[in-house]
Order: sequence, then structure tokens, then C-alpha cells
Amino acid sequence: MTSLIERSIRSAVLLAALALMPVVQAADAPLRARDLGVPFEGTPGACNAITDVAGVEVGHATLISGDGPLQMGQGPVRTGVTAIFPKGRSHSGFVRAGVFVANGTGELTGRAMIDETGLLSGPVMFTGTGSVGVVRDSVMSWYRRQLGPDPQKLFVHLLPTVGETYDGFLNDSFGQHVRQSDVFAAMDAARGGRVQEGAVGGGTGMIAHDFKGGIGTSSRRLSQRAGGYMVGAIVQANYGSRAQLTISGVPVGREIQDLMPSKGQRKDGSLLVVIATDAPVLPDQLRRVALRATHGMARVGGMSGTTSGDIFLAFSTAEPGAPAGNLITAQYIDPFAMNPIFEAAVLATEEAIVNAIVAGRTMTGIDGNTVQGLPAERLQQALRKYGRLNPVPKITAPEGCQ
Amino acid sequence: MTSLIERSIRSAVLLAALALMPVVQAADAPLRARDLGVPFEGTPGACNAITDVAGVEVGHATLISGDGPLQMGQGPVRTGVTAIFPKGRSHSGFVRAGVFVANGTGELTGRAMIDETGLLSGPVMFTGTGSVGVVRDSVMSWYRRQLGPDPQKLFVHLLPTVGETYDGFLNDSFGQHVRQSDVFAAMDAARGGRVQEGAVGGGTGMIAHDFKGGIGTSSRRLSQRAGGYMVGAIVQANYGSRAQLTISGVPVGREIQDLMPSKGQRKDGSLLVVIATDAPVLPDQLRRVALRATHGMARVGGMSGTTSGDIFLAFSTAEPGAPAGNLITAQYIDPFAMNPIFEAAVLATEEAIVNAIVAGRTMTGIDGNTVQGLPAERLQQALRKYGRLNPVPKITAPEGCQ
Amino acid sequence: MTSLIERSIRSAVLLAALALMPVVQAADAPLRARDLGVPFEGTPGACNAITDVAGVEVGHATLISGDGPLQMGQGPVRTGVTAIFPKGRSHSGFVRAGVFVANGTGELTGRAMIDETGLLSGPVMFTGTGSVGVVRDSVMSWYRRQLGPDPQKLFVHLLPTVGETYDGFLNDSFGQHVRQSDVFAAMDAARGGRVQEGAVGGGTGMIAHDFKGGIGTSSRRLSQRAGGYMVGAIVQANYGSRAQLTISGVPVGREIQDLMPSKGQRKDGSLLVVIATDAPVLPDQLRRVALRATHGMARVGGMSGTTSGDIFLAFSTAEPGAPAGNLITAQYIDPFAMNPIFEAAVLATEEAIVNAIVAGRTMTGIDGNTVQGLPAERLQQALRKYGRLNPVPKITAPEGCQ
Amino acid sequence: MTSLIERSIRSAVLLAALALMPVVQAADAPLRARDLGVPFEGTPGACNAITDVAGVEVGHATLISGDGPLQMGQGPVRTGVTAIFPKGRSHSGFVRAGVFVANGTGELTGRAMIDETGLLSGPVMFTGTGSVGVVRDSVMSWYRRQLGPDPQKLFVHLLPTVGETYDGFLNDSFGQHVRQSDVFAAMDAARGGRVQEGAVGGGTGMIAHDFKGGIGTSSRRLSQRAGGYMVGAIVQANYGSRAQLTISGVPVGREIQDLMPSKGQRKDGSLLVVIATDAPVLPDQLRRVALRATHGMARVGGMSGTTSGDIFLAFSTAEPGAPAGNLITAQYIDPFAMNPIFEAAVLATEEAIVNAIVAGRTMTGIDGNTVQGLPAERLQQALRKYGRLNPVPKITAPEGCQ
Repeated sequence: MTSLIERSIRSAVLLAALALMPVVQAADAPLRARDLGVPFEGTPGACNAITDVAGVEVGHATLISGDGPLQMGQGPVRTGVTAIFPKGRSHSGFVRAGVFVANGTGELTGRAMIDETGLLSGPVMFTGTGSVGVVRDSVMSWYRRQLGPDPQKLFVHLLPTVGETYDGFLNDSFGQHVRQSDVFAAMDAARGGRVQEGAVGGGTGMIAHDFKGGIGTSSRRLSQRAGGYMVGAIVQANYGSRAQLTISGVPVGREIQDLMPSKGQRKDGSLLVVIATDAPVLPDQLRRVALRATHGMARVGGMSGTTSGDIFLAFSTAEPGAPAGNLITAQYIDPFAMNPIFEAAVLATEEAIVNAIVAGRTMTGIDGNTVQGLPAERLQQALRKYGRLNPVPKITAPEGCQ
Repeated sequence: MTSLIERSIRSAVLLAALALMPVVQAADAPLRARDLGVPFEGTPGACNAITDVAGVEVGHATLISGDGPLQMGQGPVRTGVTAIFPKGRSHSGFVRAGVFVANGTGELTGRAMIDETGLLSGPVMFTGTGSVGVVRDSVMSWYRRQLGPDPQKLFVHLLPTVGETYDGFLNDSFGQHVRQSDVFAAMDAARGGRVQEGAVGGGTGMIAHDFKGGIGTSSRRLSQRAGGYMVGAIVQANYGSRAQLTISGVPVGREIQDLMPSKGQRKDGSLLVVIATDAPVLPDQLRRVALRATHGMARVGGMSGTTSGDIFLAFSTAEPGAPAGNLITAQYIDPFAMNPIFEAAVLATEEAIVNAIVAGRTMTGIDGNTVQGLPAERLQQALRKYGRLNPVPKITAPEGCQ
Repeated sequence: MTSLIERSIRSAVLLAALALMPVVQAADAPLRARDLGVPFEGTPGACNAITDVAGVEVGHATLISGDGPLQMGQGPVRTGVTAIFPKGRSHSGFVRAGVFVANGTGELTGRAMIDETGLLSGPVMFTGTGSVGVVRDSVMSWYRRQLGPDPQKLFVHLLPTVGETYDGFLNDSFGQHVRQSDVFAAMDAARGGRVQEGAVGGGTGMIAHDFKGGIGTSSRRLSQRAGGYMVGAIVQANYGSRAQLTISGVPVGREIQDLMPSKGQRKDGSLLVVIATDAPVLPDQLRRVALRATHGMARVGGMSGTTSGDIFLAFSTAEPGAPAGNLITAQYIDPFAMNPIFEAAVLATEEAIVNAIVAGRTMTGIDGNTVQGLPAERLQQALRKYGRLNPVPKITAPEGCQ
Repeated sequence: MTSLIERSIRSAVLLAALALMPVVQAADAPLRARDLGVPFEGTPGACNAITDVAGVEVGHATLISGDGPLQMGQGPVRTGVTAIFPKGRSHSGFVRAGVFVANGTGELTGRAMIDETGLLSGPVMFTGTGSVGVVRDSVMSWYRRQLGPDPQKLFVHLLPTVGETYDGFLNDSFGQHVRQSDVFAAMDAARGGRVQEGAVGGGTGMIAHDFKGGIGTSSRRLSQRAGGYMVGAIVQANYGSRAQLTISGVPVGREIQDLMPSKGQRKDGSLLVVIATDAPVLPDQLRRVALRATHGMARVGGMSGTTSGDIFLAFSTAEPGAPAGNLITAQYIDPFAMNPIFEAAVLATEEAIVNAIVAGRTMTGIDGNTVQGLPAERLQQALRKYGRLNPVPKITAPEGCQ
């Protein structure tokens, strides 16, 4: 019996030590969920980001200015633009894509084209609701600058793909502060490798589960047996109530009932998800992949609220095939062999959302409205309570991620 | 001026002669719309039937028995079953397929599977509404007879594809007279070549535009420039009001307001369409092809009534590709090059519906309910009035159609 | 025999006279299809326009400037904006709506919201493809001007509804010439009563069946027995090949093979249709109504080409019901009693398309590209040949249409 | 410090006592998840079953016979039929309904009708894949017995609603053992109150997360503020891998890696869900409710495998409204006020699935294939490990549940 007591005491001390252990964070590498000991399933790529899918490039333009009361048209401004290029900025052509709408009170321009032909051209853009139009038209303008004034070359860029979530709690959304130059800046900034998360780009003014949200990303490498493909996700997380927040099975939202936004619970918000893969998948299979973002969202506790624009897009960077006349020859995955890709899509979406929340820092916007960042130690405390904190939290040092 | 008058007279005499010219019909070759001088666009295949698509086999089982008042469960019986095998009775595997529902108050079992995977196994079956279940289960039984008691082989046949339209004006629909043996008979009877039209198989008790309807078929050969592919359609036509009936642009229904069913205008009924092609087309493109049956229906005046089950399925007999591991390599048509196939689908559907009506013969069913066949001379009279009767009606002598 | 010849001669003379008969056109009332003797089914409202549905207001802003070679960003400009307000400019709230996409290679912003909730706020806007974004954002701005800087009031206008077709054959589409002021002008110009057709507003640079196309409208009054409701349609017609063009069953396109656009047949183009009704119809029924625009298009010969953006929206101006708490009490039409509305939608769409073509006048745009207007006499000639020209063509004098 | 140790000891003793405490089970009341201390969110109704929605009646017919090797057509038999009547056996008419397909490799007859009109007539039936047809046709026959041979009365029952999952690991599925009499037995047995779970009715031969699955049910009562409505779910659970199994956030599947089916992991299987509510909800909102079953499934770890038929149906028992002529007056919930119903649907689905697994008992079927039931103590052990076992497990004594 004595030894039992001793073991109990030793455990308690160890736990206390862990609780006090400071989380070390490199200056230029903000913390991500895994760095805090949050356990996830599956094996991520080098950057644990959508850019692990070769060719994918992400760029942000972040607009933060002003403070104090809302002066519509003047600010304060907490918004931005994110560009996600499937095959890099210099590529002009189609990739295969599919869209699923879990709840449609949002916008994704370009969707009808993808639904009909299974093809996506140009980047997928994320922004705030008030700026969808300028982002859409500016994508056309950017290609005009890029490709020159040639209607034949530009024809493929007539239907840009722009999604949004609503940042009106922190941002002067109706002021429509995004300019063409901001869109160009986001597109010009696109690169592979590490992806900034949190309050950047389109995610600048976003809120998730009543914590500061925004951009998050993650990836999964399929086993060699399943083809060794890469699946990556990037989200703009702006949805969910506190009570629903679940991380790795732990009811974090019920554990942290304080730290609410300054005016109480927000509306439903929205979740944008883009899933990329280098697996050769046909458009109708990509629609199925996109649907699985629903499962990823559900694992974090989301239920797709009635005013939530939960719109998910999946694309494949695999060569759509060499056309010979009207015939295309292509290789693609058997529709009955999609499970590893489905699973990777679920898991990457789940982790990307959690990363968006973990990356969140407290922000004050219009009218002094304030949203709290999720404190790392509170998250760890909750995970520990339910036996889910990974035992040796350490900073992810992604070798090979540039 | 004299020669003008002479030419006028000569034309008038020729027209008069044509008008009086009896339509010759071979005993074993019932008339089809082209035989009567109905003009259509495009070039049909040898049989002007869905069976012009190599591999397609069609079989009917027709149940006609009893007369007089309805005795539910006893009859009278005016129903049947039609089997349409994409690649012949002996083929067991998948073809690519897509479904479009123009108005959904009908049934097509197996549709969810096609929507999800783009794959169809086994035949598409047509029957009356009351017999969908027995036909569905019997398809499984037929394959058990065919392939032996091997779950591995049979697994692909767990979700048979059965469509229906309602034959309750002429048939004891609720009596559910179709038996497994009838389903087997239709499947066993499937063959290529000429396809019986009108009151046969699933079409036995059907009504179209208040004339006797049922099964009709047609095909179109694409130009060599468009790939030379074949597109065929088969319909079970059981829809439409008289006033709407339009044939080759002529308001035939308004020209023939008599010859109505014995109890006045019927309910909306339904239209089943199956479109086959040997063009290599992906499932999402086949859904687009299926949608074009709507245009074909509209050209005959149909508007998809509110209780109409207008369900359209398109499949491709092209090899779905050789799987190597989980990868399939396949050739398919550029989604931007679908127009010739779309047009062929529209035109073949239009002509198939008209063929179904032209093949209709007056039928009396339950309670003495009677539906008139469209008289050939009345149709020709209407076409002539609007300058649309082809000048030299002659019997289609389909060389090469066996 | 003599009398036969005499009658023939007399007929010929009469026909010649009709052919030469000048069509009288009032200066301020451009011709519409019925004015030329084109026969249609059903009974239109006072204006034979979508504005016959009480509350609907339509406004155009038309941008025509420059000539000669394309200087991207400079012009020539042949484009514009059309605003269709369901319940007038001063109404700010929801109406019920439903969308159907016959072929999706186009854009309709705001669609996901309508799909999800069945609700439409603000106007439906038509423009050219290059200007969707500026129109979308400007609708938000217009409401900000209209309603003041109040996020609560503006919230309902976060997802504007903007459709497009591509005017790049005549217009410097990639030059994106539409400005916020043009959008405001179209919205401010919205009124009930007569609707300008042809090369106005969003329809300015459009082409239909290789003739000049653009905006067209029509309406149908339901019988009292069917509720006496009004159904109106407005189209932006920019689709279709010449060979397909069919008017009132007559193969007009095959009869008029000359007068082609200066560089031969165009691409597929697109068809936008908005259908309005004052009938109380639920959103899922409105989606069904929207689908019937497909039948209307098919009656004019359209087949929804593979690059066609054929997107159809139907809305009801009936009061969506008075909410009490979370409960809404509303009256609506039995889903099984939709046929009269379906038929009216088909017929109004058909006539609206023909009106768009009839209203077309020859236009020259970028690079000297020229599209011909359909000459009234050629259309009448074709209809006459097939016995479909109404015997007494007269100018529609719409009493009661302001 | 002493008191801390004492408290630790006291806690440890209490936990040990709880671990040893036998779970008491009444002879006639099989255990359910809550009885074992599994924590769930929300407040269930009296029976914690779909029958808590007034009017809903459930009946089962269970077919278990034979042992040993599969003799196709002879057995062994492990299958059955479940009938779910929205408003009781004696009601013949429509209720509003909506369907969502998360993954479509399954069957739900009657779906097109529901999609189109939003109306469901008769019961929703669950069975094994091999018997969908006989169940469908027998529902028609049952109504013929019930309502008499009157086509007018029977017309509404032409398109029965039958779902399935595949029981071929334990059952002679291709033997098609269900007879009309079995279907009648299930329908005749339908009643309100307690619902049998596990290996009964359609769920007899089913497998969930590699444990014995089958039928499960649960319900949630909305707060008075949200209208006080009831939402209930019933599932036929036949899906999921062991590794994925998550219960109340606990990775139960990874904790219990033994007790696998005799031939290793099964195929994807399928999940059928029916959600009932007495809230007045329109069909398009019910489709949204049905979609939320996806979130419920995801909370138990399911990801909708590629061959999974995950088909979800929601219906409302609220009066669809009194028709006056063609007009229906009805009350329904504001589409923007659906969140409480969505949440209830998610939670009831989640618990119904867990109940199906908890109710599972080890079963041996064809060829000696054996599936293990999830042992209560192993489940409790896993929950305890992660701090999620409810402290005072007690048998649910549902007062008011008859």
C-alpha cells in the first residue's frame, strides 16, 4: 500500500512539473498544436501543411489598421486575402477539383464551373465576405498582368474561385477595404514551404469556437501501400460555439468557459476548407474527398450552424492527362480504393482547424470588440485532465520544410 | 409565268399523290416515325435503336391477360419487364454511368450507387410501378443462376437498377403480377439488333400524350470528325398531355384533339430514358448527357409534370480502363468536347419518344379503360399541314440491322 | 382545273404581298416577337414582361463606347448591368428563391445561400463575365448608401446574387469596364412596367443562335382556376448555334443560314434566366420552377452546350410569412399542383428568348467583329413557309402597361 | 501534504470500487450506453428512443435460423426487417421528409420522390441488401390489405421507402430469405415506447466498428426556449473499422484491438439513419437535418468509407398543413433558427450508434463467421482510463416510457 501511495505522489509531482514546464517557442516559428502535445492520428508531411503537396503555393496579404469605434468605410480594418495556387503561380491551366457544401450560407465563386467540368483554373482565394467581388475581379486582372492582353490565354481565367467567411465582429466588413493591390500582393507572395497560420490573410479577423481563429493547415502522407500520396488541408476557420469545441476527443470548450469574446457568443460563422492531393483522382472522387472535411470539422465539435458557410473544395495536382484531339488519357485511383485519401482528408482538416485556433492571439477590432487567443497552458491542462496530452511536448522541427 | 404555273400544278399533283399513297408496312416490321415521313435531324445507326451501340442488348417480357372490371390481384393485366444490358447478358462487371432526375416522383433503384461511384453493374430494368421490388430482387437471383452461388462474384450485383412508370390506367398495378420468371424471361430474351417498340415489356400499359405509348428507341452516329461514336436511346414513355404533343415542331396535339383516353386526360405519368454510347466518357460527363434527355423530352412538348417521374440514365460501354493495383488508366473525351454527344442524346431521345407513340396501338385494359393509338394518317396530315412531312415517306429498310 | 390554277396564282400573289408588307414599328416601341406574328401559347400579362409580377422592377445601365481594334483596358466597350429587384428598390428583406443549373460553366454568386435557405435578398444582377466582382461588391455598397452604415440592416446583403454571360466577341471583357457608378445607375434605374430588350444592360454585347441577342422578357397569367397568378421571365440570351434555332416549331436557323457573325459560329455562350411569380411557392418548388427554364430553352432549339453557363433562378414575391418567435406561418401551393406554374415558366422563358433575338440589332464591337440582328421579314418568311405566321401581325399595344 | 495523500488514496479506493461494481441489468431491459456510464450531451426523452417523437412506431421481424457452412438459398439466416412509421400504422398520408447521402453505395428506394416533393408516405423500412425488393413490394401489399383494393387510396403508397445495409458476413444475403409475411410481421409489430436494439429486425446480421452492431436509437428534447420539440434517431449500424471507434471522445477502438471478427476487418459496411422530429420543419430544412447525421457518425469515428451506403432521412410528424384548394397553410421553423434541431440530430445519432454497439451480443453466422459483442467492462475500462466514465453508472429507469 505504501508503494501505491508513493507512486501516486510521484505521479502528482510529475504532473505538476509538466504543468509548470514553459513551452519554448522559437521567435520565427509560432507554436502549432503538435508542439503543445496535442495528439493526432496519421503521419504529416515535412511542413505539416498543404504545401507538402508538391506545387501548392500559399500567399497572404494581411490588412490591420485603425482602432476604436467603427466608422464604416474608414475602419478599423482586420481583414486580408489568401491565395492558394494548386500548381504554383506560374502555372496557367486546369487541375481537377470537386466541391461539397455542408451548409451553404456563404460564397464560393467559380463553383458551378467546378461542379460541371471538374476543372479548376487559377488559385483558390480566401477573404472576408465584404471583399469577394474585388478579389474575384482582381484575379482576372492579375492574370492579365501575368499573361499579357491575350484573350485566348485569359479565357481560362474568366471564372475565378473565391471563398469567404465573415469578419464583421472585428473588421469593418462593409467598408470593403481590400484593394486590387492587396489581392496582387497575396498572389505575388505565394510560395511553397511553411505556411503562416492564425490572423493572416483571409483569416485575419476570424473567430473559431469563440477563440481567435483564422488560417490553419496540416497534411498527411499516405502509406506506401496506399500509394504514398500526400494530402494537405488549409482552412479559414470562423465557426463554432465554445461549448462544442473538442480537441482530440477532449471537451476543451466545456473546460474553458471563460475567455469569451467581449460581447458573448458569436453567430455561427463559417468554415472554408481546401484539400489538396497529388493523388490522381477524378473530379467526382474529389467531391467525395471534399465532403470528408465535414467529418474533420465534426471531430473538432462543429455541427455546421444554420448560418454557417461551410464550403469545402478538393483538388488534385496530378496531371489531368495529355489530350490527343478530343481524347484524354489519364491515370486515376479506383473509386473503390479511396479510403486512405478520405481518412487523410478527415485528419488533415481536423488538425488544420486546431492549428488555426492554436495560432490565434488575442485581437481587438471595431468598437473595441475583443476575441481571446486560446492559451497554450489552458489547452494542455484540459488535455492532461483527460489523459490526452502527449507526454513529451516538443517543438516540431520540420526537417525538409523550407 | 406559264412555267411557274406548271411547276405549281406539278407540285400540287405530287403532293396530292403523296397524300393518297398508302403506307406500306411489312408484317414483321411495325412502322416507325421515319417510315411515316416524320423528319428528324442527325444520322441514325443501322437499326436506329439503342442496340446500335455495340454490346447493348434489349429483352422484353410482356404480360397481357384478362379483360373487364378490375379485380385487384386477378387482373386484367397489361404490364411487363424490359431488360437493357450495356454489354450483353454474359458480361458481369461495371460500366460507367450517370443519372439525372428532371422530376423525381418516380423510382430508380441503384441510383445512389451510380451517383457515388459512377459505376453501373448489370442491366437497367424497366417495369410498372407495382413491380419494382420483384424485378430488383429477381435480377440478383438471375445472376445467382448465371454466376453460381459465389458471393465474391455476386457482390457486384447487390444493387440492381430498376426504373418504372405507372401503368394503372390499363393494368392492375396494385395486383403486382410480375413474377421472377417474367424477369428471367425478359433478361434471357435480351439481344442486339432490332428492338420491339410500343406495348411491349415495361412499356406494355403505358400512355404518352394521351395516346398509347410505351417503349421507343433511336440512335445517332456522330461524324467521323467528332469521333464517329454511336449514341442510342431507349424510352419508356408514359407522360404528357395531349395539348403539349409536338412532333418535329408541329403542334400535333392541338391538331388531334379527339381520340382521347376513355376517361379523359391522364395524370402526368413519367418518362424513363436510358442513353447508351460507346464513346469513352467519364461518369460526371454521363450525368450531363443524361440531363440532355430533358431537352429531347421538351422537343416533343413535355414539361415534366409535377407527379412525373422523369429519370434519365446514361452509360458508356467503353472499357472503364485496366486497373493496375489501385490505379486505372483510361481514355475519355475532353469535358469541353461533349457537344456532339449532347446533341446526339437530345435527338435520339426525341425520336425514341416519337417512335414509342407511333408504335402505339389502341389498347383496352382494366374497367374497359381504352387508350387510342396515334393513327399514322392523322399524324401525316398534321405534318403536311405545317410543311413538315418528308416528301418521300418510305419504309426504313435498315441494312445491317439484324 | 382552271380554278385550281387560279387559286394557286392568287395564293402566290397573296404570299408575295405579305412578304413585301412593311412591318410598322412605333418609334418608341421596338418590335417584339408577337408584333411580327410569331405564335405563342398562353396568355401574357399587360406588359408581357417580368414586371407583370407586381413589385418586380428592372433597371439597365448600358456601356457602349469606342470602335476598332481591341485595346485591352481601353475598349471598345459593349457591356452593361441589369438589376432585377423582386419587390422593388426600396424593399430590403428576403423573398423565397430556388436555382437550377442546366450547365454550370458560368457564375451565379449568392447561389449557395439560396440553395441552403431558400431565401434571396436584394436584386438579381446580370452582367458580362469580366464584371461579376465589381457588380457584386457594388450591390453591397448601394445598400450601404441606401440603408446607412448599420451592420444589422446590411447583414442581409452580404451575399449578393450576380449572374453573367460572356460578351468577349464584341466587348473588351478582360478590360473590366463596369464601375460602381454603372452598377448604381442600373439599380437606381429599376422600375416596373415596360422593360427594354435587346442590347441593353447586361445583355449589351450578347449573341444568341449566332444573331444579336441580349435581354428579353415575357409573362404568363395563370387561369383563375389555377389561382390567377402571374409568372414572368427575363433572360440574358447569349447561347446557341444557328442550326439549332427554332421558333414556334419552325427551323428558322436552317432557313436563315446566312447573316452569320463575322468570324463564323461562336462558342456555346450561356443563358441566364430569372423567373418571377406572385404565387406563394416554397423554395424547393421554386427550384423545380427554375428547372423548367430548360424546357423553354429547348423549345428554341438550345441544348446547353458544354461551355454554356445555363443558370436559372426562380423567386416568389409572395410574403414569406409572418414570423412569431421562431415560427413562420405561411401559405403555399401544394407541391402536386405546380403544373400551371411549370407550364407558364416554360412558355415565358421560351418567348423571352425569342424576344431577345427579335430585339437584336446588328452590332459591331472589338476588332470590327459584327453580329447581325435577325431581320423581321426573314423571320416572318420562315414562319410563313411552315404555316406558323399569325395571320394578322399587329403591334402589341399593351393596355395597362406603363 | 498529508491531506493531499489521503485524498489521493480515497480517490483511488473509490475508483477501484467503481471498477469492481457489477453492472446490474434487469432481465427485460438490456443495457444501453448510458447504463454503463457513457457520457452524452443533451437531454433525452422518456424512452431515449425515436418513439419519443409522438406518433412514431417501430416494429421488428427477426430471422435467425441455421448454422454451419453457407448453402446459398438455405442459410444460415441472420437477417430481418424493421418498420418505422412516422405517424403510426393506421395513418395513411404524407409527412414532410428530406434525405442526405453521405456516401451512396447503398440503396434507399423512394428517395427521388422525397427529393422532389419533400413528402414521405408510409413507413421507412430497414432490411438487408438482398431483400430490398420484397420489402418494397410487400409494403404496397400491406397497404392493400390495410386499406382495401381501392387504387385512389393506394396511390400514395406506390413508392415505398426501403433502406438497407449488407449482412453478408453472417447471413446468406443472396439467399433472399425475407418473405412478404416477415415484412407484414414487422409492420404489424410496430408500436411506440421502448425500441429493441442490437441484433433485431433489419439490424440482425450487422457489424459496427468490427463489433456486433445493428439497431440503436436515442432522442433529445429541445429546451423550452427552442420550442421544446423532440428529436429522435434510429440507426442500422453496419459500418466502420475498429481503429476508428471513438466513444465520447475516447479512442475505444485503439484500446480494444482484440475481439476482432473471425476473418479480420470487414468491408466498409453502411450506416442507415432515420431522424424524426415533431418540430414543424419544411422539407429543405429536413434535408439539412439529415445531413447532420454525418456529424453524429463522425463523432463515433466513422469517415464514410468508399463502399459505405451512408444514407440519412429526416422527417417531421408535424401536420403538413390543411389544404384549401391548392393552397396549404402551414407553420414552420425559421430556416435561420435550426441550430437546436441540428444539434439534437447530431447528438441523437451519435448516441443511437453507440447504443447499437452496446446492445450487440456475440453472433456466429454463415461458415462459422463470428462477430464479438463489445464487452461492457472493456468499454468502461477505456472510458475510465480517459476520465470519461460517468461516476455513478446506473440503469436508466425511463419513467413514462411504456
